[in-house]
Amino acid sequence: MNLDSYLGDFAERDWQTDAEGTVRVALLGLGEFACDHVLPALEGDAATDRTRFCEVSALVSGSPEKAESVAGEYGIGATLTYDEFEAGDGVDAFDAVYVAGPNALHLDYARTAADHGKHVLCEKPIEVNADRAREMVRACEAAGVTLMVGYRPQVEPAHRRLREMVRDGLLGDPVAFHGWFTGHILAAGGEDQWRLDPDLAGGGATMDVGVYPLNAARFLLDADPIAAQATTSAPDAAFEGLDEHVAFQLEFPGGTTASCTASYNAQGDDRLRLVGTEGQVELNPAFDSEIQPTLDVEIGDERAEYTGSYVNEVAEEFDYFAHCVLTGADPEPDGRDSVADMEAVEAVYESAETGRRVEVGDVGV
Amino acid sequence: MNLDSYLGDFAERDWQTDAEGTVRVALLGLGEFACDHVLPALEGDAATDRTRFCEVSALVSGSPEKAESVAGEYGIGATLTYDEFEAGDGVDAFDAVYVAGPNALHLDYARTAADHGKHVLCEKPIEVNADRAREMVRACEAAGVTLMVGYRPQVEPAHRRLREMVRDGLLGDPVAFHGWFTGHILAAGGEDQWRLDPDLAGGGATMDVGVYPLNAARFLLDADPIAAQATTSAPDAAFEGLDEHVAFQLEFPGGTTASCTASYNAQGDDRLRLVGTEGQVELNPAFDSEIQPTLDVEIGDERAEYTGSYVNEVAEEFDYFAHCVLTGADPEPDGRDSVADMEAVEAVYESAETGRRVEVGDVGV
Repeated sequence: MNLDSYLGDFAERDWQTDAEGTVRVALLGLGEFACDHVLPALEGDAATDRTRFCEVSALVSGSPEKAESVAGEYGIGATLTYDEFEAGDGVDAFDAVYVAGPNALHLDYARTAADHGKHVLCEKPIEVNADRAREMVRACEAAGVTLMVGYRPQVEPAHRRLREMVRDGLLGDPVAFHGWFTGHILAAGGEDQWRLDPDLAGGGATMDVGVYPLNAARFLLDADPIAAQATTSAPDAAFEGLDEHVAFQLEFPGGTTASCTASYNAQGDDRLRLVGTEGQVELNPAFDSEIQPTLDVEIGDERAEYTGSYVNEVAEEFDYFAHCVLTGADPEPDGRDSVADMEAVEAVYESAETGRRVEVGDVGV
Repeated sequence: MNLDSYLGDFAERDWQTDAEGTVRVALLGLGEFACDHVLPALEGDAATDRTRFCEVSALVSGSPEKAESVAGEYGIGATLTYDEFEAGDGVDAFDAVYVAGPNALHLDYARTAADHGKHVLCEKPIEVNADRAREMVRACEAAGVTLMVGYRPQVEPAHRRLREMVRDGLLGDPVAFHGWFTGHILAAGGEDQWRLDPDLAGGGATMDVGVYPLNAARFLLDADPIAAQATTSAPDAAFEGLDEHVAFQLEFPGGTTASCTASYNAQGDDRLRLVGTEGQVELNPAFDSEIQPTLDVEIGDERAEYTGSYVNEVAEEFDYFAHCVLTGADPEPDGRDSVADMEAVEAVYESAETGRRVEVGDVGV
C-alpha cells in the first residue's frame, strides 16, 4: 500500500482556494466552549489565533457585564443583548452568527440570523428533531445564507484522509464500523445544565455525543443508514427522562453496519474503527475537540501508524465555514447532512422504545 | 488503582490444586486444529508439550493411514475408526474424548462418548442450536461424565484477570462491551469446508466466530443477555445461506450492552473493550489461539498496559479440562454455559430475520 499519498500532506487544507477575505462572526452565547475554545482560536494571541478567514466582531449574551468583560479582553467592538439581536440592532457589526447553547433554541436563533441576512454556523446537533432541522434549512435557503453545522471532525485532517482511503478502496468493501464517545457530563457541567433538561436538549447521550460516531460513519461511508436498532438506559436518577447510555446499530446499503456506543456517565473515551474486507483502521481519539489523532492502518499484513501535526479543530471549523461563505460553496456538514443525522437519531430512539428495527426516514427537505 | 494485585501473577493457574494424575484423551478427527495446535501442545517435544494433567492416547479418524502416520509421529498407542469408536472397540485406551469437526455432529459423538463412560471436551460452538446443546448436557449428566466446551479464553490468564477487575468494581458499573472477531475463512480453509455447509455448521460467522465475543461478554459481565438485536448480510455468493457478516447487540440486566461484530470475510482482527462508569479496558488480541494479549487499562486518569508471559491456550484448555476430571469439578465453560450461548445465537438470528428485538430464551436444561 502507498499510504504516503494519503498521509504525506496530512494536515493540508484540501478545501482551501486562493480566495481571500474575512467573515465577521457574532458569537451567540458565552458558554464554556465559546470562551475556552472559540475565542482563543479566533481572537487569541499569535500563539492561539489560528484562523485566516474569520474574526469575532460581536458578542451576543444575556449578561451585558460578561459580554463587556470578554469583549474588552479580546478587543471585540460590539456587544448585544438577545433582544437587540432579535430586533436587528447592531447587526451591521457582523456577517455571520455562531449559534450554540440549548438545542431547542437553535432554530429560533438561526431563523433570526437568516432574517437579518446573516450566515449561520450552528453547533451540533442542529436541533431537537428532524422537522425543526428542516425548518432551519428552509429558512436559510429562503434567505440565501450559508448554513453549516459544527461537526468539527468533517474538517479534521485525519477524518478527511481516512475518507479518501475508504473511497479509494484501500480497505476493500467496508464491513463494519465501531465508534464510541463516552464521558462524565455531571463532572464537567454539574447538575444545572441544559443538557439535563429533556425539553431543551431533545435527548440525552445519543443526541449530544452519539451524533459524533453517527455522523462519522455517514461521512466515512459516504452513505445514509437505512435502519436502526438501539438500546438505551438511565440507571442514574440524574438522567431521568434522558438516555444516560445508548448502544445503537445502523445498517447501511449493502449491509455495512455501524455499532456505536455513547454515554453521559462512563470513563471518557472517543475513537472509531472501520473494518473492511481487505483492511482496517482505528482513529484515536476521534471526536473530542482539539485532538491530535493517531491513525492506525492495517492492509493485509502491512501496518502503519500515523500521527499528524496538531491542528486546532475549532480554527479549522470556523475557517472552513468562512471560506464557504467567501466562495459561495455549500459546506459538507450542511443542514441536509444534519437532517439525515436527526432522522437516524429519531429511528434510534424509536427502536429503543419499541424494540423494533426502525427504518430511517427520508432525508428530503 | 493497585493493578499489581491483579497483574502480578498474571499467568498463574488460579484453578490448579495439588491434584495429580493424567487423563488419557482420544482425539476425534485429525483436522488442522488437532494436528497443528492440539497434538504439539499435548504430545510435542519438551519445547511444545505444555500439559501436565493429560496426554493423547488414541486417535479416531476416518483415514486409518493418516491416523497411523500421526500416531507414529507422536508415539500414540491406539488408532480407531469411527465405527470402532461407535461400537466401543478399544475404548479402554482413553478416559476422555475431544470432539471437534462439524458442529452438527458434536451431539452424536458426545453421546457415544458418554455412553462409553468417557468425559467430553467439545469444541465451540457446542452444537447447531440450543435444543441439541441441551441433549448433550443431559446425555453427559445421565452418564455421570464431565462435559466442557472449548472456550479457550475462559482459561486464558488475561481474560481471568480482567474478570477479577470487573468483579471487584475497578471499572465501576459496566456500561458497554465491544468485541469483534473477523477473518478470511476462504483463504484459510478453501471453498470445500464444512463451515460453508449450513446443515453441518448450523450458521455462519455468528455461530463460528461471533460466539467468542458473545461468550466473553457473558464471562466478563458474569451475566446472561436478556435480549438481542442483529443485522446479518452475505454479499459474497460463497456464503449463500450463511451470515458472512454479522453485527449484533446484546442487552444485559441493568442495561449494560454488548456490541459485537463477526465476519468470515474481513481483515483479520480480534479484540474486546469494556467501558465502565469509572474505567475501561481493551484486550488485544482477545480470541485467536495461542496469543499473547495486551491488557490496556484506564481507571480515571491512570493508565497501565500489561502484556503477560506467553501462555499456550490449548495446553491451558486441555489441562484445565483434565484437572476438572481429576478433581470432579464442574468446568466453567460447561454445557449449560454453551446452552446460554446457543439461546443468544438463536435470538441473534431471529432478530436479523424479523427485525425485532428478541428476548433470549431461558437457559434451563
